[in-house]
Amino acid sequence: MNTHPFDAALRLTTEQSGIYTGNTSADYWNMVGPFGGVTAATALNAVLRHPALFGEPVSLTVNYAGPLLKGPFRVSASPRRTNRSTQHWLIEMTQTSAAGVDEVMLTATALTAVRRPTWGSEDSPMPVLPHPVGLPEEKPMTGVEWIHRYDMRFVEGAFPTQWNGQGSNSLTQLWMRDRPPRALDFCSLASMADIFFPRVYLRRALRIPAGTVSMTVYFHADGAQLTASGTGYLLGQAKAHAFRNGFFDQTSQLWNEDGLLLATTNQIVYYKE
Amino acid sequence: MNTHPFDAALRLTTEQSGIYTGNTSADYWNMVGPFGGVTAATALNAVLRHPALFGEPVSLTVNYAGPLLKGPFRVSASPRRTNRSTQHWLIEMTQTSAAGVDEVMLTATALTAVRRPTWGSEDSPMPVLPHPVGLPEEKPMTGVEWIHRYDMRFVEGAFPTQWNGQGSNSLTQLWMRDRPPRALDFCSLASMADIFFPRVYLRRALRIPAGTVSMTVYFHADGAQLTASGTGYLLGQAKAHAFRNGFFDQTSQLWNEDGLLLATTNQIVYYKE
Repeated sequence: MNTHPFDAALRLTTEQSGIYTGNTSADYWNMVGPFGGVTAATALNAVLRHPALFGEPVSLTVNYAGPLLKGPFRVSASPRRTNRSTQHWLIEMTQTSAAGVDEVMLTATALTAVRRPTWGSEDSPMPVLPHPVGLPEEKPMTGVEWIHRYDMRFVEGAFPTQWNGQGSNSLTQLWMRDRPPRALDFCSLASMADIFFPRVYLRRALRIPAGTVSMTVYFHADGAQLTASGTGYLLGQAKAHAFRNGFFDQTSQLWNEDGLLLATTNQIVYYKE
Repeated sequence: MNTHPFDAALRLTTEQSGIYTGNTSADYWNMVGPFGGVTAATALNAVLRHPALFGEPVSLTVNYAGPLLKGPFRVSASPRRTNRSTQHWLIEMTQTSAAGVDEVMLTATALTAVRRPTWGSEDSPMPVLPHPVGLPEEKPMTGVEWIHRYDMRFVEGAFPTQWNGQGSNSLTQLWMRDRPPRALDFCSLASMADIFFPRVYLRRALRIPAGTVSMTVYFHADGAQLTASGTGYLLGQAKAHAFRNGFFDQTSQLWNEDGLLLATTNQIVYYKE
C-alpha cells in the first residue's frame, strides 16, 4: 500500500524524547516554503508522538517565524504543565543555516485535554449549500504544488480570475478534502484550517505579497468525531474583519458533511502595499 | 499622583534582561486567581519592557496553565526570531511552589511588528448601539474584586439575574473602560479582551465551573490609534460558536467610540457539566 503524501510529509524521526527530525515535502510546496497547513500539522504531530501525551488536541497556535527551507528540520515538543485533565505544550521548529546557525522557523503552543461528556450546544449551524459532488473542482492559484493535494470545490468566493482591483467581499465557502482521500484526523484538520488563500486576494482582486504569520485552531471535535467524518468533504468558510497597515485577520469555520462543526480557526496575515 | 491600579498590577522588576518578577494584585482578584486579562497584559508587558523589542504588538496568545497563587511570580520573555519587520516572542510565567518547585503557570507567544501604511478596509462595522453615557452601570457577578476596576455598561446579554437554565443565546454587547479612566494602551486592550464573562453562563443561564484556557488577541490598531482612543469607552461584542464536551469558544471584537476596530480576540474555555 502506498503511503499517502500527507503521511509522508508528516514523517518524523525521533532523535530523543520530544525532539524529532523531518524533511520538507515537495508534494506540499508553496511559493517560498511548504504549505503552512502541513507545517502546522507537523508541529501538532510532534505533540501527538510524544510519549508523555495526555488527552487530545483542543487548541493549537502556530507562529510562522520564517519560511522553512527545502530540506531537513528539527521539531521539539515539550509538555510544560500537566493538570488533572489538561496539558500545555511548547513547540519549536528550527533549521540549521548554511553558516551552521540554528534558526527558529516556527514557535507554537498547544493544549491537549481529556474531554468528558457535558451539556452541549451547536450555535454555528453549517450554511445550507449545494453538495460538493456536482460542483466543479477548481484550483486556487497555479504554479504551486500543494493545491494538487486537495480536492477543492468553491461555492462562494473562489480564487479571482480577473485581477482588476474590483473585489468587494472577503467571504469564501468551499468544500475540501485530501487528494487522494484520506480519513480525517487532527493533523489533517489542522492542515485544512490553513487552506483558505489570503483574503486580501479576494477582497481586492489583486495578487500582492501576503503570508500567514500566526494561526490558532480550536478543535471542537474529538478523535472519534474526526474518525466518523472519514474521507468525506469538509465545508470551510473564511472571511476577514479588517485590513490595516500590513496585517489582516481571517476567521474560519470547518464543518463535516453531516454539519458538525469540527474546528474554528483564526489567522493574522501579513500583506504588502 | 496616585498610580492607577492597572499600572500597579502590571509592575515588574527586572532580574536580568528578559526575566522579571511581579506580584499578583488584590485589586484584580477573580475567584481562584487573578483576572485573566491582567495576567495576559502582564505577559505582554514583559515583551514591551524587553530591551530588544522591535515594533508593536500584532498578535498575542496566552495559555493559562494554572491559576496564579497570591504572591510573587516570575515572567520571562525571549525574542526567538527577529526578521526585517517582525519579531516572534516566547513568554512563560512561573511560580515557586511551597515544595520549592518552579511550576509553569502560563505559556504565551507574541508577534510584534513595524507596521507600514498600506491599503486598508474596515469590514466589520461597529453595531449601532446606544451611547454608554445614559446606560446604567452593571456588575457581572458579585464577590470578585476585579469587576470593580471596570466601568461596564451592557447593551445586550448582561450577566443573568435568574439562574433558571433558560438561556438561549450567547451574544453579549457592552461598553467598557478602566475605572478610574486610564488612557488605552496595548496592555489594557489585552486585558479588556478577556472582560467577557464565560458564554456558558449566558447561554445556559446556569452558573457552572468555567475558566479560559487559551486566548488569542489580534491587534488591528497601532499605538497611535490606541493613544487616540484615550479614556473613551470601548464597545465589546462576544459570542460562542459551539459548546461541546467540556470546552467552548468565545469570539469577540473590540471597537473604540469612533467605531474603529481595535482588536479581534478568541478564547477556548473549559466548562464542567
